[in-house]
Amino acid sequence: MRESELLAHIAARSADLRERFAHALIGPGDDAAVLAPPGGRVLATVDHLIEGRHFAGPIGAKTTIDAIARKAVARSLSDIAAMGGSVSEWGAALATAAMPKGFTQEQSAELFDCLQRSCAQWHVPLVGGDAATFGEGAHPLTITVTAMGLAHPARGPVLRSGAKAGDTVYVTGKLGGSFASGRHLSFEPRLNEARELCDSLGEKLHAMIDISDGLGRDAARIARASSATIEIDSSSVPCHAGSDWQRALRDGEDYELLFTVAPDAPVASLKFRSGAPITRLGIVRAPASPAEGGRCFVRAPGGRTADVSDEGWDHT
Amino acid sequence: MRESELLAHIAARSADLRERFAHALIGPGDDAAVLAPPGGRVLATVDHLIEGRHFAGPIGAKTTIDAIARKAVARSLSDIAAMGGSVSEWGAALATAAMPKGFTQEQSAELFDCLQRSCAQWHVPLVGGDAATFGEGAHPLTITVTAMGLAHPARGPVLRSGAKAGDTVYVTGKLGGSFASGRHLSFEPRLNEARELCDSLGEKLHAMIDISDGLGRDAARIARASSATIEIDSSSVPCHAGSDWQRALRDGEDYELLFTVAPDAPVASLKFRSGAPITRLGIVRAPASPAEGGRCFVRAPGGRTADVSDEGWDHT
Repeated sequence: MRESELLAHIAARSADLRERFAHALIGPGDDAAVLAPPGGRVLATVDHLIEGRHFAGPIGAKTTIDAIARKAVARSLSDIAAMGGSVSEWGAALATAAMPKGFTQEQSAELFDCLQRSCAQWHVPLVGGDAATFGEGAHPLTITVTAMGLAHPARGPVLRSGAKAGDTVYVTGKLGGSFASGRHLSFEPRLNEARELCDSLGEKLHAMIDISDGLGRDAARIARASSATIEIDSSSVPCHAGSDWQRALRDGEDYELLFTVAPDAPVASLKFRSGAPITRLGIVRAPASPAEGGRCFVRAPGGRTADVSDEGWDHT
Repeated sequence: MRESELLAHIAARSADLRERFAHALIGPGDDAAVLAPPGGRVLATVDHLIEGRHFAGPIGAKTTIDAIARKAVARSLSDIAAMGGSVSEWGAALATAAMPKGFTQEQSAELFDCLQRSCAQWHVPLVGGDAATFGEGAHPLTITVTAMGLAHPARGPVLRSGAKAGDTVYVTGKLGGSFASGRHLSFEPRLNEARELCDSLGEKLHAMIDISDGLGRDAARIARASSATIEIDSSSVPCHAGSDWQRALRDGEDYELLFTVAPDAPVASLKFRSGAPITRLGIVRAPASPAEGGRCFVRAPGGRTADVSDEGWDHT
């Protein structure tokens, strides 16, 4: 298959895009996609997926193209969820793939099909992208997915910077061991749960982030953006079987929602339609000293308190 | 510099984004950017820039980080121009960089600064992105820039598929030798010229593309999308000094606008404010046989006619 055949393949698979998504006026095949304007605040994000970093190679043997594509899309949609956003009424995705020399055009076509199918699974039109090949040498398959969606129409976007002293800190689902268990390839971005949180809590939902780099590091991001301190009780951390609170702090790749709410927010009466648990982890407080600002502390068994702001995945 | 310091650098440089761009409500630093909704059709595109493919390494010695960043932004904006779009009233960019091991955080910070400065040069807010590092091994710096803009408010988006038999084919500027001369690092995306074409020609501007892969290949893309045949006269091809019509067909990386217009379109009276030339290249005609559909032919000196649809850069 030549590049022109790959492009013809993509065009054929995109011919009915407008029938399926009324706002996706022009999809892949022109210089840019054309989208009907949305009715609300537009959310836009982009994320990488790199072989050997975000999934294990070799491709096919260790990780299927379908699983790679699904994770690439899900990662970016998790960022939309972390803003309290949705893609069900108006959303779009663009994808890029920089491919190693040995990656065939048939594999490229399969990758496109899998990206498009994953997008469709969450009701997002894949409206464009770019395919390129690396030169000589053994280079990792490198994918990016740009995702667009809309902020919650009433609540507006839920930022990292909205946490206030006195807030309670919660997390959806369970944490830890995502990469080792393979859950990093099958997680469900918490789009529905984000919508339900915004619907139910409104302005009392103060701050939110998705846990990609580990509970410690991502909680500290909320603390830093909000000029506050977060305290977590280790015994409250919900862990997957085979994991523990230390791994929950460090492992990352959970894509669960970490959020802070006003003390009187009716979280106790909230039940997600998905059945995902909601767990109270700790509190937001004012920093006791300048050095405590923007940090996350965990109270370990035995009462010792540790700064875990730098636990987790640093991209260096 | 650690990753957290790089992020702090990016946040500090983005603090006044909203003052400079009223619709960029939330920029880098949260899970996604937040944009006020636009008033027209949204254009969205993404393109790669890969070391060794789209610019020569080593970084710094052969190509400066500033030149790399500028080209990454300009390439994507050229796609917006090729749709007849603009970014001056409402636009946004997201950038990703997958960096080789030896690329320092200081270089990352410089890359961000240069990307932001290039975006600002064309009045686009850089509202988000992602930085990742490759694992061990010598891998090329790999950048993507997602660009969003608006279609022309009256003409609407100018697609590749609008060419009609009887149309005249034009090109802006001069062609050939872009990579060898270094022009591929300094070209100006034809945003203003695209706007002037839409303003002046309206519905008589039928189809448009930017020349990235060579005149032959990109003209054939219009022909294919429009189920038509394009004929170009070699003697009419405007060439840079040191180039010739064969190189214009093949070299690519010119980022000039190739467009087709109705026979009575007032192109002759059109003068770009930039002073860029407009040159008549040939015609669009109905295919004489099914095999001719979607092809571009050039009449060479001496009268021989050659199919040049596959001349130029194929990304395989």
